Amino acid sequence: MKKSIFYHAGCPVCVSAEHDIVNLVGSKNVEVVNIGENRSRIPEAEKAGVKSVPALVTPNGNTLHINFGASMVDVKG
Amino acid sequence: MKKSIFYHAGCPVCVSAEHDIVNLVGSKNVEVVNIGENRSRIPEAEKAGVKSVPALVTPNGNTLHINFGASMVDVKG
Repeated sequence: MKKSIFYHAGCPVCVSAEHDIVNLVGSKNVEVVNIGENRSRIPEAEKAGVKSVPALVTPNGNTLHINFGASMVDVKG
Repeated sequence: MKKSIFYHAGCPVCVSAEHDIVNLVGSKNVEVVNIGENRSRIPEAEKAGVKSVPALVTPNGNTLHINFGASMVDVKG
């Protein structure tokens, strides 16, 4: 199975959601990307439809926004 | 593993998220509850911290709000 990608920005809400998602989906099925630290990944996240973090982009390209940590505007600013 | 519970209310956003979650987590690992039809499950959802649907309550009791379909106020109204 193609991996999901979990985008986050290191915020407490993100870290909590990351633990839950990794537990549920399995760590080998999800790539975790901190776009606060790894800013070169921001454009691909936006292209995938990520409006806020934490968000999970599924293997079929759907974006699931999970709870609400920070908007992309805040991450970029 | 204890099952997760996916609460939804039949809205298009809910149905789309349900397919993604069931694909990712596995149908045997998640119970799907339509609280629009099965209103007796609303109190337990609220007790678990569900503020809007779709939402996933994980086996360890965390509630992940996914995208945004409808608030609990709208579902109850």
